[in-house]
This record gives sequence, C-alpha cells and structure tokens, in this order.
Amino acid sequence: MSLTIKLQSFPHLNNINHNNHAKNIIKNKTFSNQNNTKILLHKPIFGYNPLIITKCTKLNKRMQGSFMIKSSLIEPDGGVLVDLVVPENQRDSKILEAKSLPFVKLTRVDFEWVHVICEGWASPLKGFMRENEYLQSLHFNSIRLEDGSFVNMSLPIVLSIDDETKGKIGSSSNVGLIGPDGDCVGILRSIEIFKHNKEERIARTWGTTAPGLPYVEEVIAPAGNWLIGGDLEVLKPIKYNDGLDNYRLSPKQLREEFDRRKADAVFAFQLRNPVHNGHALLMNDTRQRLLDMGYKNPILLLHPLGGFTKVDDVPLDVRMEQHSKVLEDGVLDPETTIVAIFPSPMHYAGPTEVQWHAKARINAGANFYIVGRDPAGMGHPTEKRDLYDPDHGKKVLSMAPGLEKLNILPFRVAAYDTRDNKMAFFDPSRSKDFLFISGTKMRSYAKSGENPPDGFMCPSGWKVLVNYYESVQTEEASQQPVLSP
Amino acid sequence: MSLTIKLQSFPHLNNINHNNHAKNIIKNKTFSNQNNTKILLHKPIFGYNPLIITKCTKLNKRMQGSFMIKSSLIEPDGGVLVDLVVPENQRDSKILEAKSLPFVKLTRVDFEWVHVICEGWASPLKGFMRENEYLQSLHFNSIRLEDGSFVNMSLPIVLSIDDETKGKIGSSSNVGLIGPDGDCVGILRSIEIFKHNKEERIARTWGTTAPGLPYVEEVIAPAGNWLIGGDLEVLKPIKYNDGLDNYRLSPKQLREEFDRRKADAVFAFQLRNPVHNGHALLMNDTRQRLLDMGYKNPILLLHPLGGFTKVDDVPLDVRMEQHSKVLEDGVLDPETTIVAIFPSPMHYAGPTEVQWHAKARINAGANFYIVGRDPAGMGHPTEKRDLYDPDHGKKVLSMAPGLEKLNILPFRVAAYDTRDNKMAFFDPSRSKDFLFISGTKMRSYAKSGENPPDGFMCPSGWKVLVNYYESVQTEEASQQPVLSP
Repeated sequence: MSLTIKLQSFPHLNNINHNNHAKNIIKNKTFSNQNNTKILLHKPIFGYNPLIITKCTKLNKRMQGSFMIKSSLIEPDGGVLVDLVVPENQRDSKILEAKSLPFVKLTRVDFEWVHVICEGWASPLKGFMRENEYLQSLHFNSIRLEDGSFVNMSLPIVLSIDDETKGKIGSSSNVGLIGPDGDCVGILRSIEIFKHNKEERIARTWGTTAPGLPYVEEVIAPAGNWLIGGDLEVLKPIKYNDGLDNYRLSPKQLREEFDRRKADAVFAFQLRNPVHNGHALLMNDTRQRLLDMGYKNPILLLHPLGGFTKVDDVPLDVRMEQHSKVLEDGVLDPETTIVAIFPSPMHYAGPTEVQWHAKARINAGANFYIVGRDPAGMGHPTEKRDLYDPDHGKKVLSMAPGLEKLNILPFRVAAYDTRDNKMAFFDPSRSKDFLFISGTKMRSYAKSGENPPDGFMCPSGWKVLVNYYESVQTEEASQQPVLSP
Repeated sequence: MSLTIKLQSFPHLNNINHNNHAKNIIKNKTFSNQNNTKILLHKPIFGYNPLIITKCTKLNKRMQGSFMIKSSLIEPDGGVLVDLVVPENQRDSKILEAKSLPFVKLTRVDFEWVHVICEGWASPLKGFMRENEYLQSLHFNSIRLEDGSFVNMSLPIVLSIDDETKGKIGSSSNVGLIGPDGDCVGILRSIEIFKHNKEERIARTWGTTAPGLPYVEEVIAPAGNWLIGGDLEVLKPIKYNDGLDNYRLSPKQLREEFDRRKADAVFAFQLRNPVHNGHALLMNDTRQRLLDMGYKNPILLLHPLGGFTKVDDVPLDVRMEQHSKVLEDGVLDPETTIVAIFPSPMHYAGPTEVQWHAKARINAGANFYIVGRDPAGMGHPTEKRDLYDPDHGKKVLSMAPGLEKLNILPFRVAAYDTRDNKMAFFDPSRSKDFLFISGTKMRSYAKSGENPPDGFMCPSGWKVLVNYYESVQTEEASQQPVLSP
C-alpha cells in the first residue's frame, strides 16, 4: 500500500515545538509504519503537537472477515483483538477442570488485571506476562512480535505468588484462579514462574523507589517473591455488580458502538477526576478541529479509569454520577459522546503509564488520544515537587515504540478566565486574568461548601462533588477524637 | 534483497532455552530486519543460545564508496560511522572559536565520553544527548531513526552542568569544552539545556537507587542539576599519554585492521578482568565453532574496557600487561587476536549496560558478541545478593531493539576441573569435580602469594597479578596505623 502525504494549514495556531516522530515524517515525506498504511499529514491543531497523522480506515488483508475489524478506525495491536472468555458451552467443563487444579488466590487488583487482559485491552497479551514479556516491558516499554514489529507494553502486567503457593503448584503446568470473593474466575495455562525482584520492578517502572507510591504500597509491597505468567482463560464475563457494569464496555463492544454510530474518528479522553468546563472546552474544541480536518462524525470516548486509585481520588461511583450530570446538562453532547469505564488499575507512573493508557485505547478502537500536562503524574511521595517533569508524558508518548499508528493530541492548559468568567485556554499574554483551580483547590471549595467561580463546572455536576465531600467530612468528623476545651 | 535460511546441526550440544528473537526466525523462516540483509541461520553453538544469525558481508547501496563500509562485516548503527574530530587544517580556527565561547569544564569521565562519542562508538550519536534522545534512551533503551528504524542506545550519554555554568552560558548556542588538564578539547554546538533528574536517571538505568553504585557515587552524585546536549566537534584525536594510547584503536582503525587481516568474522570479548584459562578456552572454542560454521578467518577482538572502573577492579595498565603475557605465552594466538582498549567508562548497570557494550562493538565492526553470566553486574550495594539476575543480561541482549544484526554468543560457565587439572566447561553431571575460582578467590590467592591450581592462568600472566597485589599490600601496609602489642 503506498503512502500519501497531504498538508493542511491551520494558520490560526501558534508556532510550537515539533515532536520527533512527526519531524521524521516531514523530512522523509513518508512514514514507514509496520502496517504500511496510508496516512494523511496535517499541520498542528493543538498547542504542542506539530502534526496529526490520520490513518485512513483501511482493511488489512489478513484481518478481513474478522469480527472486530469491521469497526476498525485503527487495528488492535497484533492485528486481532484478544478475547479470553470461554464460550458458554465449555464453561461447566472448564470450571470442573479449574477446581481440580492447584490455585492462586487473586487480590482485587489482580482481578482487575484479569478483567483487562481477558477483554483484550492489552492485546496481543494473552495472559499474565512470562519473563520474556516482563523483561521487554521493563527495559524497552515494548514487545517484539513474530514479524519483527513492536507493540507498546510499558507496564508489567504480572501476577505474583508467595513461596507457599509456589510450593503447592509444584510441577503443575496449569493453575486455577480464585477471585477475591472466592469464585473460580479462570485458568492460567502453560505457566512460567520466575523471580519477582520488587526493587528493580519499582525503580524501572516509576523511576523512583521512594516510599509512598500508591500502587507499590497497595499491590507490590505485600506481594509474593515470585511472578507467575501463562495463558489466561476466563470462565465468564467479568462483572462487579456495583451498579456500574453497564458502563463497562469491552474493546469489542466499544468498536461495535463506534460502528453503530458510524464514527469516522474516535478521540479518547482518559481521566480519573470530575469533568470541569476546562475539560469540556478541550473536548469540544478537539471535536471542532476534527470536523475542520474533514471528519464528518468524530465521536468522543469519555473514558474514566475504573480500577484501583489512591485514597484521595474521587471514587468511581461519584465520578460516574458527576459525568452523567455533565452530559445531562449538555456541557458535552450525548449524541457524539460515549461514556464508558476503563477497567485498569492506576499506577501513577507518569510517562511510563501514559503509554499504557494510550495503547489500551488503540485496542478499544480510538484513533486519536488526548494527552495533557503531567499525565498519570502525582507529587513526589517524599519531596516537595512533581514526581515527573510535566512535559515528559506527552514527549515520551510521541516517541513511544508501537504507538506510531495512534494520533496523539496534546492540549493547551485551560484555566478560569476572570475577564470573561469562563474556562478558557490559558493566554500567557494576559496571564494575570487567569485563575488555576487545582484538584486540591477544587476540593477545598467543595469541602467548605463554597461555590467555585461561575462557569467552572456545571452546577448539577458540582452538587455531586459537594454532596460527596460533605459525606466524607461527616465521616471524618465522626472519627475525630473529642478535644477538651 | 531476499532472505535465505541455512540450518547446521551441532548434535554434540545440550538442549537449551530458545531466545525469542531466534524463535521468531524459526517460526517465520525469515527475519525482516531493517536493512533487509541476507542472513544464514544456524543451530546453537553454545550452551544457552539456540541460534546464530550470520549476516553476510553485503554492501548497502547508500553506503557504497563510503570509507568505513569497505571493511564492514556489519554496518555501523545509522549506516555511517560517526567521526567528530575536525580536520587538521581547521584546527587552529576552531581553537580560536572555542576559546571565545562560554565553556564547560569536563571531568575525567566526561572526557572519556567525549572520546567515545567523537570516534563513533555511539554512532549515530553526534554529541551529548539532547532531551529527546535522553528520554528515548531512558524509557526505551533505543532511539528511533528518521527512517522509522531503531538503534540501540541503552545508557544515557549526557554531560551535566551546575547552575553557575548554566548562568554563564546564558543564551549562547555553542560552548567550548575544557578537558580535565585544562586544554581546550572541543565545541558543543546548538546546545539544549534540560533538567537532570538524578533520581529518575539512576532508577531507570540501574533498577535501584541504593547508595553505593560506583558510577553514581563517582559521576552522578557530584554532578550538576542540568544536562547539556548538542553536536560535538573535537579539536584533535584523544590521547591519554599513559603509554597505552597505541592500544586505543578507534572503530575506524579496527575496521581497517579487520580488513587488513581479511577477517570474514570478528567476535568481540568485552572484559575488565585478567584473562584466565577459562576465558581463553571459551575464546578458542568460539573460534573453532566459527571455523566449523564455515568461516575461513575469524578474528578475536579482545577488548578490555579502558574507562572508569571501581576501585577494587584491577587497573587498566596491569590488565594490559597481563593480557600481553597471555598472548606471549600463546594461550591466545596473536595471529588471530587483536587486543585493543574500549574507551568507555563502566556503569555496572547489568542488563542495561551490556546492550551498550554490544552496540559499541557493532560500530567497531564486530559481528559476533560473546556474553557470559551476569554481564556488567556486581553485588547489590546494600544487600547480600547479586544486583541483577545473572541470566537477565543475555536474555535482555537477545531481545534488545537495534541489536538484531549482531550475533549474540552466550557461553557456558568454565571452571577448574580437578579431574583433568585444567579449566573446562562446567559439567553438571560431575559438579563435585569443578572448582569455581571467583575474582575474590583469585585475588586472595594473589594477595597471599599462594599459587592457584596449575592451569588456571599462564604463569607469566599470574606473575603480573601477584606483583600488582604485592605493591597494593605494601601501599596498604604503609597506611595502616601501628597497633600496640
């Protein structure tokens, strides 16, 4: 398939840095990506990103007739979307088999990873990583496929076991997986057990070993000294029965929904916070830019993360309620927006993790990914500074092996414009007019019951937060010791 | 160019794990490497490695007529060997220019990196890394070229400056480089200054932040909070005037020497220790295997590391004297061996660093690289264990992006066979016959003046070590406080 380049100017945009990957395309006039698919080249549409590479909808021969490709604006990594849930007619026999095997008890977070793997978010990964995949992920943030090409794989997706479990497994080549509620969840086949060097895993994943990393404290510190990899089979679709399962669309279901809506572009927005009008501005602005680029029906995938988050993040159920208000209020257009839950746990691993967030959305069928300042970042656990350089996330994302086919859309910072009393893209030429409302600031507003400036967030969405923080405060208050006067 | 596969059996060899990369070749019957060069496929010739992929000498069109390619058994990374020493006729004007610029004072180790970069060991790198290259190295251990292909680049090759120097540089786009002895060494052009996050650099490079890593203590801890990247120009060939410069052959000189000797295969052996008969066994065995594979004139590049090493390693001059005795004694054949110094400093960063050691030898023209147990490893600085899994080095090397064209030759452990009184490949079936003589053990022999078992090392080479440790002990003794009876 030949490569064609088409340039469109967006003269109204500022001049900005070029990302390397895009520069190469300019210099070479072509871009040799593994699938050798036709690309269009556009001038920058957002503050940082110089170029948007638009992959045309195009069937890859080996994919034709394969169900998940009908909807493909972008091919799943490895070409085929992984689906590891066993057919219903085999379920009973597999359950019997699973119960006959030595077993591994899954934590809540292990269970979330089983969910992620079995629905193909981590395609082409077919189970928990064996050492070959683990080492490639740790050292290269990518995995080499049999054709020599690379897929991105920046987080080790691993299952740990302790010495006792390892002993019980003995020489068995398959194990059963028991969920946190005691149900039999699945089978891990052709297992490989290898050392779990926690220090090295933490250092290479987070770029620090400082105490206080949420995922480390919750998941890795208490974990066993061994990792067990193998091919996963899941006995039935994963459900949480928390009233939110209807939001948990699998990559296959999302791709089908994009089809149903006849989307010709899908732009994904990963978040783990309430949606304020700055986010909305940016998402609506993105849609407009895509229309300007000639797309007829760009669809927004508003994709809150649903797995493990740190204690001071707003809980999933509250966020989902807040998001629904934002759509009810029409701040985002329900006609062109799909709200769904991304089941992954959160690492807070900055530039390493943002690659995972983007890669998983490729598998979900999104061909545009929006990335902001300091994605998946947090404060340093022991020092008074950001853990990561706020610009590294988008830079690393723009250079990451295996993400070439995804269009990265970095965005400018939005802040409250006190001149026009609304959220607007920050204008350095009149910085004094802008008010930055951080998560902490937002929370202090909500805690104190004080309203944020008009136009910061739709009132009904804000009410959801106020109610939540009131309930938290009541709870905290009830835990305070009584102070003597 | 088409790909042909030829299989040769080595039935006398044990059955061993397969490395992924090789497995893919088997499965696919072809290997799509970036240069699309003809390859031969062989069965394993050493304990671990399943396959040897032999790149045929073949001119790449865009390289024809280029000096360094005449000798190429393997192409330099990026296709052209970097050479940053300015022509003699421009030297005076460049010196004048350099003296007119704000300057950066180089440490001894910075100077060693200038040496490494300007001779093209790090090709295609043309200077100290800018942030784009630094981030790719840190996160992906590789750098993407403009054609979309990857070269390996596992260690950040960076120059640090402090706040004061940054202030003095101001808005200048070029800086002069002043060597540790005060001479003007070179110019760094189109500079980029970016933050030096030491913690993240250390964690991602070593997989630990434990105190006591030699390179960290010597180089990073005292370094400034900024990194300065740019294009390097070196004013004259790097010399140390330590009597060993004649051993410091550049990649260009090595490629010319391989030509002169009409080598049809070059196998590199990286070391920073004295050569004992176990090493010799392995190197001679490798040569024999290459002859068995049909090569007519395989040449050994015995390539001791010449840059920074930790205090308890044997110093370079002593090692070079010991190596020369090994050749004088005919333990290694001078006719088929080239001894030269690899000017890089040592990181002791295990699986991350071994990629650098291999990549630099590609640029030096070696198409086979020998890797052993725990390459570039050391004990954990604060725990009683190896810092790295001893097998990870060869595994990571076999999977590393950008090293596909290099033939990795893992080897079995050699030990002293008390049955036959010689160094031999360890035979697990009669493990009790084998004596493992570690570096520490060797040293304790040499210190005590006690001789190691006959056949451990050639006597003249051993004498060099004994003399060295005697001199050290005398020195230490002279520093001991006198003890009261």
